[in-house]
This record gives sequence, structure tokens and C-alpha cells, in this order.
Amino acid sequence: MTGIAMPSPDPLILARRDQIVAALRELVPGEGVISSIDERRAFETDALTAYRRMPLAVVLPSTTEQVAKVLAYLNREGVPIVPRGAGTSLAGGALPQEDAVVVGVSKMAKVLDVDLPNRTIRVQTGITNLGVSGAIAHEGFFYAPDPSSQLACTVAGNIAMNSGGAHCLKYGVTTNNLMGVTFVTMTGEIVEIGGDAMDPGGLDLLGIICGSEGQFGMVTEATLRILPMAEGARPILFGFRSSEAAGAAVAAVLGAGIVPVAIEFMDKLAIDICEDFAHAGYPRDVGAMLIVEVEGAPHEIDEQLARIGEIATEHGATYSRQAKTPAEAAAIWKGRKSAFGAMGRISDYICMDGTIPTGRLPEVLHRITEICDAAGLQVANIFHAGDGNLHPLVLYDMNDPVSLAKAEEAGDEILRACVEVGGCLTGEHGVGIEKRELMTVQFTHPELAQMMRVKEAFDPNWLMNPSKVFPLGLRQQMRQAAA
Amino acid sequence: MTGIAMPSPDPLILARRDQIVAALRELVPGEGVISSIDERRAFETDALTAYRRMPLAVVLPSTTEQVAKVLAYLNREGVPIVPRGAGTSLAGGALPQEDAVVVGVSKMAKVLDVDLPNRTIRVQTGITNLGVSGAIAHEGFFYAPDPSSQLACTVAGNIAMNSGGAHCLKYGVTTNNLMGVTFVTMTGEIVEIGGDAMDPGGLDLLGIICGSEGQFGMVTEATLRILPMAEGARPILFGFRSSEAAGAAVAAVLGAGIVPVAIEFMDKLAIDICEDFAHAGYPRDVGAMLIVEVEGAPHEIDEQLARIGEIATEHGATYSRQAKTPAEAAAIWKGRKSAFGAMGRISDYICMDGTIPTGRLPEVLHRITEICDAAGLQVANIFHAGDGNLHPLVLYDMNDPVSLAKAEEAGDEILRACVEVGGCLTGEHGVGIEKRELMTVQFTHPELAQMMRVKEAFDPNWLMNPSKVFPLGLRQQMRQAAA
Repeated sequence: MTGIAMPSPDPLILARRDQIVAALRELVPGEGVISSIDERRAFETDALTAYRRMPLAVVLPSTTEQVAKVLAYLNREGVPIVPRGAGTSLAGGALPQEDAVVVGVSKMAKVLDVDLPNRTIRVQTGITNLGVSGAIAHEGFFYAPDPSSQLACTVAGNIAMNSGGAHCLKYGVTTNNLMGVTFVTMTGEIVEIGGDAMDPGGLDLLGIICGSEGQFGMVTEATLRILPMAEGARPILFGFRSSEAAGAAVAAVLGAGIVPVAIEFMDKLAIDICEDFAHAGYPRDVGAMLIVEVEGAPHEIDEQLARIGEIATEHGATYSRQAKTPAEAAAIWKGRKSAFGAMGRISDYICMDGTIPTGRLPEVLHRITEICDAAGLQVANIFHAGDGNLHPLVLYDMNDPVSLAKAEEAGDEILRACVEVGGCLTGEHGVGIEKRELMTVQFTHPELAQMMRVKEAFDPNWLMNPSKVFPLGLRQQMRQAAA
Repeated sequence: MTGIAMPSPDPLILARRDQIVAALRELVPGEGVISSIDERRAFETDALTAYRRMPLAVVLPSTTEQVAKVLAYLNREGVPIVPRGAGTSLAGGALPQEDAVVVGVSKMAKVLDVDLPNRTIRVQTGITNLGVSGAIAHEGFFYAPDPSSQLACTVAGNIAMNSGGAHCLKYGVTTNNLMGVTFVTMTGEIVEIGGDAMDPGGLDLLGIICGSEGQFGMVTEATLRILPMAEGARPILFGFRSSEAAGAAVAAVLGAGIVPVAIEFMDKLAIDICEDFAHAGYPRDVGAMLIVEVEGAPHEIDEQLARIGEIATEHGATYSRQAKTPAEAAAIWKGRKSAFGAMGRISDYICMDGTIPTGRLPEVLHRITEICDAAGLQVANIFHAGDGNLHPLVLYDMNDPVSLAKAEEAGDEILRACVEVGGCLTGEHGVGIEKRELMTVQFTHPELAQMMRVKEAFDPNWLMNPSKVFPLGLRQQMRQAAA
């Protein structure tokens, strides 16, 4: 039982389950259709684990043509579809619904082409994020967006959510690194969108598909921009007495015109939990910590770190340590990237994902503490500070429905606070189900109506991941107005 | 008379001209409505000067609210609208039609806010591109996209066309530097799209509005990302015996993992014309020339230029000269940026705008020569080589309709050649009327149909810049299919 409603399943679709499964087996022969309760269970949730729904069936096609046949069939039959990458969504973007077929890309994970002179790689979208960089590392190249879940999450999911990561401060998010896609429409047409060039002509459908949370159709192949690795990179740790002081230092570094590759923030609770888990060598006696990474030639790194160090000192840094070896640097990042997993060992939590102007960091951090204190909840702050992308982890107890309700309420209040200072509801996790009803806090009715009309230009029947992103009530209003 | 058809004006609208003008005067009091033939003449063409159409009337609102009232009125009355920035479009994107009202943003050109810590500037979109950088230069910041027409062209037009420029190799095009807009819908609703953050939640309407060629509604204000100026920048000139050799050098520099700020290419004819006009100090005895600019601290510039110099030498550079003073650097850029104007002094020309994978430069340059030789036409090649954005200028005589027809045919063939090697129809000038019918060369029918459905999600009545971008015949087919 949770605070976020899902629509009741359509009994007419539930009644046709056997027939739908049989038809899907025709379209995707072999072992591509999953029908038994036991096997379906692996797909009933994503990383917003408080929510579970058993899907009608699961299909894992092996080719774009199979995806096209499946979408055309389900669209014709009026059966909802929930697309799925690796199911690492933190906002419920991949949560099934009981009358929906999950269509997953996990069997389509090949590298199709590497073009170093043009700095692109062509992949099937079931490949993991880290798999992309892995395929080109020996050539000295990498794929920039690096969500913490990069070992598991797929390019398909990254595109759906326009994912970022620690290093997007310098390199941008998925949309800044995506050149083209093979896209399957709801009627089963296979279209090529974008290409190898900056402005491929026509409307920028690529940009609007990126971040559409799987509500438009399915992306089965993608051309990604790859970058040459920097000559070197080095992280430095700074400790501060308070979160506010660390936040002020971030704003000052950016205000001085320095662009590090990453600036990551962890408060006391986050430091302790990560250090217990990963033994990264984080300082224990500070109120908050920053990981700042810069890259370039050794002397450029030295110069940048010296300037950053001066600013940190001016803002009261009480601790500072540069990574001296690659192993030390790797340990620092391992600690940060394992944060959500480390937290999961000691408590249930909901991970919020809001973004604010970096200049407002100190006051928003203060406000988050106030909100959680008032609710009697613990909060760990760990986030991409450089681009103002907050990830407060609000702790609760899954066996206590009251504590989940309180955590969700506090999370809502935190996101409202982000919007109030000129920020927004999501940084990189998407809206999913988690922030669906909050969309009205950030957007006016005409703004949401315009978005919904664009959604309908791709999916007029609202079958593609239909219970996500847009407030359910607003959709009904729009339908009634149109009828 | 030219080869590109415009639809016949609607006589019912022409007959209502006086009534429409009177209504517009109510909505935009003062001198905001232009009705006399003489004054309208200034708006009858854009930089694709071979095409002229006298608009029904011209409105120049002073506020977003006036724009909203004007769009709502014209939409209600079924009157087509052609939006206009400075009218510098090279593809006919701002060409009026006789039954359309031109709505221009030239009276809305204020800087509204500068936020250095968050690195943004908020402007009204009638401001010129150079006006944006001018407003922040004293603080050491600049706005990156730099079309050659930047002295005249507006931010509104840059957004409509997703404009680039010489420096977009490093900094990206308009869409990469646009954070948010105030957008007026066809029904006169004023909506805020995007914001100050990387992923503002909801659908990426911002990305699809950027580059929509004024077909969705009007953008009256914009928040732009600004960047700190580099410590220094220095251009270097390289001369080569042939265009092919220069093209191969470009591919080699990029393949080596170097990212200059700009790599500009000029062939012999372009060099001569620009040098005659601007006295930039270009070499006269070479077959082609590259301008390569790098930036950073002095020693970084030296290092990069040394590596680039080695590669140029390996590829047969016969001439090399670094700018030694800021004045010399400015002269080198002045020559390049005045190219289109300089060419206009000696001949009529159509400026093509295709993009190709940089690895294919030598063969496409060869093909362009073949195509123009076969047509008996002169061609000057001058373009952004670093990102493969070609600008062949095909020379013709405006007083000789046969030569224009031949030039347009050769231009079409050049663009087909770009698409054939995996490139595309536009780099930064947009589709406009010029490449409308060629869209079917690059896109399939389902791809174009999907784009048109998105256009209709914003403008269901096809009133906004309606004769541009999409093949006219295809639209009729879609309408008949829907009816």
C-alpha cells in the first residue's frame, strides 16, 4: 500500500491474457515470451521498490523487426505496453501495470559499429551503459554519461530518462551525447531519427524522444557520441564543518569560471554509510564532503586543483586530500557510486531527484534538514553538486506504512522547495510515477496540455507507459474536453 | 520566377485585408502595424533573395502579451503567420506569403537579466546574436553560437533555425546553449518551457521548439547559457595544393583526438574573393586554406598548434602562418565572416548548407566540383570543416532564369550527395522553402508523417509558417488520409 495510485486494470484485457500471450509467441518465437507467474515476478518492480505490479506478460524481442510486430499488434489490440531496460529506474518509470505487456530490450545488446574518425558508436539499446565505454576503452575513448547504476542500466533506459551522472557537469547528459536512433512507432513503423551530424534537418524528434520516459515508442538502436579520454584526471576530497559551507564552496568554484569534470557532495550520514561499505578513505570528522575531479595534462590538473583549493580554504574547508594514485582515485569514486547500494543495506529509503540553481545550494540544504527534522525522518544528502542536481535520500521503514507515507510527504515538500527557488522536479531520474502528481507544481495546465498533445502525436491511444509522467486526473480532463 | 512553388494565396483572406489590419491595430497600438506597400517591401524577402512575396501586413509587437493577442486573433481567423527575426535566413525560412501576416520580434530586444554565478542571460529574442555577447563581454563571458550574420541575426531566428557558426565545433549549436524560453502558443497562451537546469522535467519541448523553423508558435524571451572566455585564442592559417588535401588534413586532426574551437575551410575562389574584400592576409598561391583556432593558456595554445602543424605538414601543407597579434587574428576572422557579403559583391549565388561525416570530406569536395563543372557553374567552397558542415556557394546570374535553374539543380544534387555519404540536408540554415521538396531524399514517408503530427500538436490548423519545411504535396496527402 502506498500513496501513489495506479489505475485499475482493464478486466477485458485481463480476460484475454491467454490469447494475447499466444499471439506474442507467434511474433517472437523461441524463448522471448515470459508468461509464468514465477518468471514474471522478476519484472514486477524497478528500483522504486516500494511499488510492485505483476505484468500481464513479458516479451523480450531479439530484433527491431520483432519489436515492430509486437508494438503494432498490441497497439491494434489496445493493450498497454511498459517498455523496460534493466529496470533500474528510481522513479517508477519501469513499473508494470497488471493489464500491460512489458517489452524489454535485454536480448538486444550488441555493438554494431565503431567509427573513431567520426567519434561515434552504434549499439543496440539493450547494452549496458558501461558496456559502451568498455567496447572502446582500448582505443582511448569513452561514452560520457555515467549514471551510478551504469554497470546495469541500459542505453535504452538512459535515452528514455535522459540520464546524467557525476560527470555530466562537463560533458552534458544523454541528450548531449546522442546522435541518432532507430525508433519503432506504435503502428510498427521503423524510422531513423537523427544521424551522425549536429543538425540533421527536420524537426528535432531525437531531442523529444530522449527523456520521453518510454511514452512515445521504442528505441532499439542508437548512435552515441564518444569522446577521447583526457590525458589524466584526478579527484580531490574537501571536508567542511557544515553542509551549508560545502554548498557555498561549490557555488564559489563555479562562480569563478572553473568547470571541473565533477563536483559531488556528501553529508555526514552519507559519508559514514559509504565509508563503512566501500572503505574509500573518506574523512569521518567532517560535516560534509566534496569530491571535485579535474582533468587534463598533469600541470593543468595541478593548476586547477590549486585554484579550487584556495577557494575551498576561503570557504572554511577543514580537510583536503588529493588522490595520489589511480587506485586511490578509483576508491574515491567507488565509494560515491556505491552510495545507493550502501544505503540500501542499512535502511529503506526514497531517493529524491530535484535540481536547483547552484547559487541556492546552501539555503536548500538547510531547508531539506528542516523538512526531514519536522517529519522525524533521517536524510542523507549525496548528489551532483556541480550542476545543482540534488539526491536527498529520505530514510523510512518499509514495514511501517506510516513512515513511508511520511517519507513521501517529505520528499514532495523537498521537490516543492526546489521548484520554489527556480529549480525543477527532476535531475536525471525522470518523473515516472513518483513525481507524476507533482508536475502541476512546476508546470501550468497549458504547459502540461501542450506536452500531452505531443505525446498523442506519437501515441494517440495512450498505450505506451500510460500511467507515468502526467497527472492521471489531468488526462481525464483533457479527454473529456476533447470528447 | 524560380523553381520552388509557393501555394496560391487564399483570395478570401486577401479580400479581408483591411479588416485584419484594423483588428491588428487594436491589438498592437502605436506604430506596431505596417500596412503601406512601401513599408511592407522591406519585409518581402530574406537572405534567399531570389524569392520575394509581399505580405498581407506586418506586425511588430512590443510585448509578449501583444504577441499572444496577435497569434490568438490570427489563429481564430484562419490567417497564416510568418514569424520574422532579422530576415537573414539563407533558406527562405522567413519568406512571407501573400495571404500571411508577418509577425516580427525586432521591437523586443532587451537584456532582461544576467546571472553570472548560474552562467545564464535572459533576453527578449529580438536582440541580435552579437548583442548578447556584447552585454556580458565586460564581465569576461560570451554567448557561444556565432553565425556569420551575428551582427544582424536575432536570437529568435537562431532558435528557430538552431543556428551554429564557426565555433560550434567546440561549443555546440543553439540547442546546446539554450536553457529556457517564453513561448506563445497559437491559441495565445504564454508558457514557460525549460528553465535554468539541465533536465527540467517533463517532455523536452525546448529541444523540439529549437529548430522548428517558426512552425510551432513564437519565442519571445530566452534564457541562454553563457561561458567564461578562454584565457586566449589564436588562429593559424594552413595552405594546401588542393581541396582534397585540406579535407584530408581536417579528418586527420579530428581523428587524432584534437578538438580545436573552429576549423574553417576556403577554396581558391573563396580565398580570392574574401582577400579582395577584407585584406585578411590570406595566401593567394594555394588551392585551399584552413583556418584552425585553438584556445587556452599560451602554453596550451602552443602545444596544440604544434601538434596540428605536424599533422598539416604530413598532409602536404605548403603554407602556415599563426596570428601574432590580436589585430591579425581579428583580420583573419573578419575575412571569413565577410565571405557571403564579399561574394555577393561579385556574383549572385545560392549558398548550400549540407553536413557530412568529416571522414568523407575529400570525396564530397571532389563530387561538388564534378557536379558544378558538369553544369558549367562556378562554385566557391567555404565552410565549417570541423563539423562537416559544407557551404558550397553556387554562382549564377539573377537576370538569367536558366542559370538560376541550373544552380538550383546543382545545389539539389550536392545535397543528395551529402545524404548519400550518410550526411544530411542542413547544417545550420534550416530547410525553409529551399530544401522543402528534398526532405523526401533524407526522410521516409513515415518519418515525415511523424514530424508533421508533432507540428500539428502545436499548430493543428497549419497556420504558422505553413509553406516551409514539409513537402507541400505530402501535406495534402496526409490531410486527405485524415479526412
